[in-house]
Amino acid sequence: MKPASRVPGRRRPAPENHLDPVPRGRRDFLLGAMAVGAAIASSGARAEGDPAILKLPEHSRTLGAPVVARGYGLPSQYEAGVRRRASPGLTRTPISSVAFAPLQSLFGIITPTGVHFERHHAGWHDIDPRGHRLMVHGLVREPMVFTVDDLMRLPSVSRIHFIECGANTGMEWTNVAVPTVQYTHGMLSCCEFTGVRLSTLLERVGFDNSRARFVLAEGADGASLTRSIPIEFALDDVLVVYGQNGEMLRPEHGYPLRLLVPGVQGVSSVKWLRRLEVGDQPWNTREESLHYIDLLPSGVHRQYTWIQECKSVITSPSGGQVLLDTGYHEITGLAWSGRGRITRVDVSTDGGVNWREAVLQTPILDKCLTRFRADWVWDGSPALLQSRAIDDTGYVQPLLRQLREVRGTRSIYHNNAIQTWRVADNGEVGNVQLE
Amino acid sequence: MKPASRVPGRRRPAPENHLDPVPRGRRDFLLGAMAVGAAIASSGARAEGDPAILKLPEHSRTLGAPVVARGYGLPSQYEAGVRRRASPGLTRTPISSVAFAPLQSLFGIITPTGVHFERHHAGWHDIDPRGHRLMVHGLVREPMVFTVDDLMRLPSVSRIHFIECGANTGMEWTNVAVPTVQYTHGMLSCCEFTGVRLSTLLERVGFDNSRARFVLAEGADGASLTRSIPIEFALDDVLVVYGQNGEMLRPEHGYPLRLLVPGVQGVSSVKWLRRLEVGDQPWNTREESLHYIDLLPSGVHRQYTWIQECKSVITSPSGGQVLLDTGYHEITGLAWSGRGRITRVDVSTDGGVNWREAVLQTPILDKCLTRFRADWVWDGSPALLQSRAIDDTGYVQPLLRQLREVRGTRSIYHNNAIQTWRVADNGEVGNVQLE
Repeated sequence: MKPASRVPGRRRPAPENHLDPVPRGRRDFLLGAMAVGAAIASSGARAEGDPAILKLPEHSRTLGAPVVARGYGLPSQYEAGVRRRASPGLTRTPISSVAFAPLQSLFGIITPTGVHFERHHAGWHDIDPRGHRLMVHGLVREPMVFTVDDLMRLPSVSRIHFIECGANTGMEWTNVAVPTVQYTHGMLSCCEFTGVRLSTLLERVGFDNSRARFVLAEGADGASLTRSIPIEFALDDVLVVYGQNGEMLRPEHGYPLRLLVPGVQGVSSVKWLRRLEVGDQPWNTREESLHYIDLLPSGVHRQYTWIQECKSVITSPSGGQVLLDTGYHEITGLAWSGRGRITRVDVSTDGGVNWREAVLQTPILDKCLTRFRADWVWDGSPALLQSRAIDDTGYVQPLLRQLREVRGTRSIYHNNAIQTWRVADNGEVGNVQLE
Repeated sequence: MKPASRVPGRRRPAPENHLDPVPRGRRDFLLGAMAVGAAIASSGARAEGDPAILKLPEHSRTLGAPVVARGYGLPSQYEAGVRRRASPGLTRTPISSVAFAPLQSLFGIITPTGVHFERHHAGWHDIDPRGHRLMVHGLVREPMVFTVDDLMRLPSVSRIHFIECGANTGMEWTNVAVPTVQYTHGMLSCCEFTGVRLSTLLERVGFDNSRARFVLAEGADGASLTRSIPIEFALDDVLVVYGQNGEMLRPEHGYPLRLLVPGVQGVSSVKWLRRLEVGDQPWNTREESLHYIDLLPSGVHRQYTWIQECKSVITSPSGGQVLLDTGYHEITGLAWSGRGRITRVDVSTDGGVNWREAVLQTPILDKCLTRFRADWVWDGSPALLQSRAIDDTGYVQPLLRQLREVRGTRSIYHNNAIQTWRVADNGEVGNVQLE
């Protein structure tokens, strides 16, 4: 009996506690078990002596846990490291803050709802849906108030879309190289959303087609967060959402109702949605005049930036992980575009000198994450891993340098630059910024 | 300000406790809030006086909950009725039993992992992945043992597939009309799975291409559940899975490794996978010679039935729900086929006399649930709701009568008949069997 992994190269001791608070990823996870694999590899005979092979474990000789009368499943105790994480000190209060999704530990394109990133302006509430209302008014023939159940009776639609905060990867504008992909790109998630087309509601209230140019969306949290949505988006693919990954929205994601503006920075997908007002101009609300604006080198603030442009990131190997040996590694990551579909992703292992095309996982959907993969045999020398996405408009994800030439270094939002991970000769992966 | 819902027809009082243990669905949920909607509807002026409109609720005037340093989100307290449910008395022990998915409350095609159905033969365990091994042996050149991490380094693939227990809808073979869709069809779920192609592993161990005809899969639970998988399936789309809906498998679904045999009855997708043996004939294991066999009218047991044939069910309105008023209702449900893609679903509201084509939600994927929808205006008279799916082989979902003509009434498995829900004139929806 031969072990599957022969580990000729570098390896590192297993972490003492797999539940430790350090961000852990797929390759971190390798730390623990590959040490075992390495032990097996040191001798073919050892495989025969491995307790896991020779002796039936306890769980193969006993009865396990029953099904329960009314149950809701949770992750394994051994996956306690896969969590949303806040970044201490990033904001003055955790009530107006962010918790990042653990992209380094996730597979495919669906983000588990339990670790979908959070961004709140005044904290989150678990709102009783029986008392919740959505008012639709403004330039309409007949203003209306909808209960959640009114909305759930209307014709519905389900679509898989990403949501990315406009500030995602914001720290990288300057020279702050945040250590892990959870913190560089973790304000990004992707779920199957279900709801009613906003156009259905606007038609129902008889919006004034000749004058309507924007729709104001307002949330029912303490921030009363408000954003202006262009009417052409509202009539296209915007949804009033109640379902996320098959079940009702979670409280921190806007239960019982949120807006979803596909492809647009997350702040526009207003949570705990209570009011939609049709108007003939944008509202210049706080969150579109003081925040969510881009400070250009000229000193001018760019306002009303909507689209999350084409972007990608390698999630494994990524910062904070360690390659334990040379040889085969799968490079994998995510690509997305607020303008449509991903048509191609290129991968480089030498900092952009040479590129080759990655394999895209199907289905490739509109304004949705696309998983890409590329084979890689690591020879043990330092490497610079990059990915570069192209969408169906032909837009090519830019270098950070190209973005800075146009936008300077004082922006917070809309950094869609190519990300570089440096693999050191000891296997450690870190975040570096190439000029 | 006009209320959105004008409720002219029947309505029912709200349930006293929305957390009660009775299966609740989308339409049940209407019970509570539509009563409020009805109150609003009774007078236009009342809308102005509705506290939910006039006065800002507490959560709009206060700070909410913070993000936490390391968090994992859960459903709202108001969704506590959406749970997997066991059926008391269905099995002699809850350790070898079933918990059904609450299809009546779900949206889209992704089943939330927390309510993905469970079926165990000896209970479930939370297996430490560091000690877990997968042995691949038999008619192979080089038998190998893989750690979980060995497998996670190999080229991966993600796909969205349904898993349906072969016994799903089994009670309906006789004249037992189980009351809700959770119990009639709830041994059905659909997730994005990530893992390694079984063909990748078989090539790695050098399977004997000239002699290999079956692969035995064995689980590491106390049942040591074993099933024979035809080699043509193994080399096609079978996966050794570690990821489900973006995160690692949950313990009750086979953590850290399971097999996924797309389109085949769930028992073949062996959980807690520890052994794969390549052989030249099926093994006639307990779970393929005593169980999971079909007793035909001739008295002969049909063995080695694999494919879950084309099937569909309306999930809303469905048994146990109540239509609170006449007028518009969206009929929605799920269709799937173990042979490929769904090409069409027809819906009838008069027990199959007249049919019309439902709208299929895209993307429509191979061996995956497809959500269908049809508009319906209920006039308040009794109705018989049915759906009929067709797959890309041209197979048409049969009537129960047609199935019984061939297979009798003593089968347990592979009931893919058309389901009928009867809507009474008081709006109550129940399960009926049409002859």
